[in-house]
Amino acid sequence: MITSHIRPDGDGLGSGLALYWMLRKLGKQATVILKDPIPKAYNVLPGSDLVTVSPDVNELYDAAFVMECSDIERPGLPSLKDQFIVNIDHHSTTRSFGNINWIDSTAAAVGEMIYNLCKALGIEVTKEIAECIYTALLTDTGSFHFSNTTERTLKIASELVKRGVEPARISQALFYSNPFSKIRLLGLVLSTIERDETGTVAWVCMSRDMMYDAGASEEDAEGIVNQALSVSEVQVVAFFKELSEGVYRVSLRSKGKSNVAKVAEMFGGGGHRNASGCRIEGDFEDVKTRVIEGLRAAVGLAPVTA
Amino acid sequence: MITSHIRPDGDGLGSGLALYWMLRKLGKQATVILKDPIPKAYNVLPGSDLVTVSPDVNELYDAAFVMECSDIERPGLPSLKDQFIVNIDHHSTTRSFGNINWIDSTAAAVGEMIYNLCKALGIEVTKEIAECIYTALLTDTGSFHFSNTTERTLKIASELVKRGVEPARISQALFYSNPFSKIRLLGLVLSTIERDETGTVAWVCMSRDMMYDAGASEEDAEGIVNQALSVSEVQVVAFFKELSEGVYRVSLRSKGKSNVAKVAEMFGGGGHRNASGCRIEGDFEDVKTRVIEGLRAAVGLAPVTA
Repeated sequence: MITSHIRPDGDGLGSGLALYWMLRKLGKQATVILKDPIPKAYNVLPGSDLVTVSPDVNELYDAAFVMECSDIERPGLPSLKDQFIVNIDHHSTTRSFGNINWIDSTAAAVGEMIYNLCKALGIEVTKEIAECIYTALLTDTGSFHFSNTTERTLKIASELVKRGVEPARISQALFYSNPFSKIRLLGLVLSTIERDETGTVAWVCMSRDMMYDAGASEEDAEGIVNQALSVSEVQVVAFFKELSEGVYRVSLRSKGKSNVAKVAEMFGGGGHRNASGCRIEGDFEDVKTRVIEGLRAAVGLAPVTA
Repeated sequence: MITSHIRPDGDGLGSGLALYWMLRKLGKQATVILKDPIPKAYNVLPGSDLVTVSPDVNELYDAAFVMECSDIERPGLPSLKDQFIVNIDHHSTTRSFGNINWIDSTAAAVGEMIYNLCKALGIEVTKEIAECIYTALLTDTGSFHFSNTTERTLKIASELVKRGVEPARISQALFYSNPFSKIRLLGLVLSTIERDETGTVAWVCMSRDMMYDAGASEEDAEGIVNQALSVSEVQVVAFFKELSEGVYRVSLRSKGKSNVAKVAEMFGGGGHRNASGCRIEGDFEDVKTRVIEGLRAAVGLAPVTA
């Protein structure tokens, strides 16, 4: 069996499905099991319709391949720990929780590792395998924008196009197939963008009314915070989402060295240096002031004194 | 001398500056002359500070290389026609207006042609040349999303990274260095998104008030229409920009086969099948109704009868 983390993304799914098609080519039986349903955009992946969505693993397999997970809990499948685990990841912080652990932090995506495995095993890179790996590369490098993009990443992408990938078809499905509600919500939320007097700290807000107005789900709010972070002088961004009266989920993002994990921790949350989050209850203006003060400290600014 | 079209973009500038550095490597004197100033984002290009911005060409050169132009008027330099012209382009519709014409419509960008020329001439691909060509490829393929992206495009991109390009540094400068005003304007305009009852025709509006509120220029409005077009069911989009009381610039975009050039022509404008524009005077509600009727016809829908 093959699995990946909850809330599946392009690399978890793409590398997992590529491995599925490789095992099939080798004459093996294989099954992909995920805790969460596949986001609609990933229906473009060959084999996405073969994935089993299940709250747990219900039988013992010869091996369980765990793709792109930092620990054994990340797939959200309680009985996974009883399997013979092959842990495949590209994050340097990943623990060696498997019976076999293959961790390569030089790879832009697990998809890059799976491509190399495919070549090493002498398995033909079919169009199915190529499309799955291309999706993994494209999504985990942010369309080849992130610093994990290497000469090797682009060379593999080129070879995958040779194997039948149509870059425009995959990109169209992944990035140009937004629900109407998502674009409307993007507008409503970005309209609220504000910044402090230095221009380095910015914030956007999403009320329940906006979600209702746009007919949007919380999934539609994904990615908005990155648009706010795309302002050149902005170093840190807070995205305040009203969950219910007086309850807010706050997503924090930063560029470069500013550590927003520390800010999230101040409010009982957590995450990484450049991406973190927390849940705060209270009066909105008060919540906003406290988070902004935290962010100002994170970029080395003095508090705003009343 | 080297030139490119008015309102310079990543391919015109990138291929032009790459050629500049190549000529320098060959021991030639060279100068880049453009009609319009270089957008700030392209300051990342080595040599962008050496470009001369001028309303015309003031001396006779041994040769004038015209990059990515459909005709001799596109650079906006009246005396250009007196030069010995080398026309280099990748658009199949480009006229043979030069003394030498090199047109390769299989190339994703003119930058791709210039890379091949560099290799053919045995010129070392320096970091400067590599960065200029990478920018050309990245921008003209929409970050490798468009259908002009081929195996060759990605292979060249890989080789350019080998020559010293840092993909994240270039991408950061090009795509994550937005003015605050642009992101705020994006929010205000996208908040206005509406669609017809079929969901295939959508429109967004920008008033003078919005530009004032966001502190935005018309340049900040670029790209917004593409976000509206990213809605999955939407086939055609109109972007109404209020220029002054009762005067509107209308940008039209389409996916696939819907021809919006025809719609623009109905109002005295023009353009391509998938991107066109026109200028209309009149009452806004009336202007909107007429354009939407035109777009409905373009996607094969019957008019909305009163």
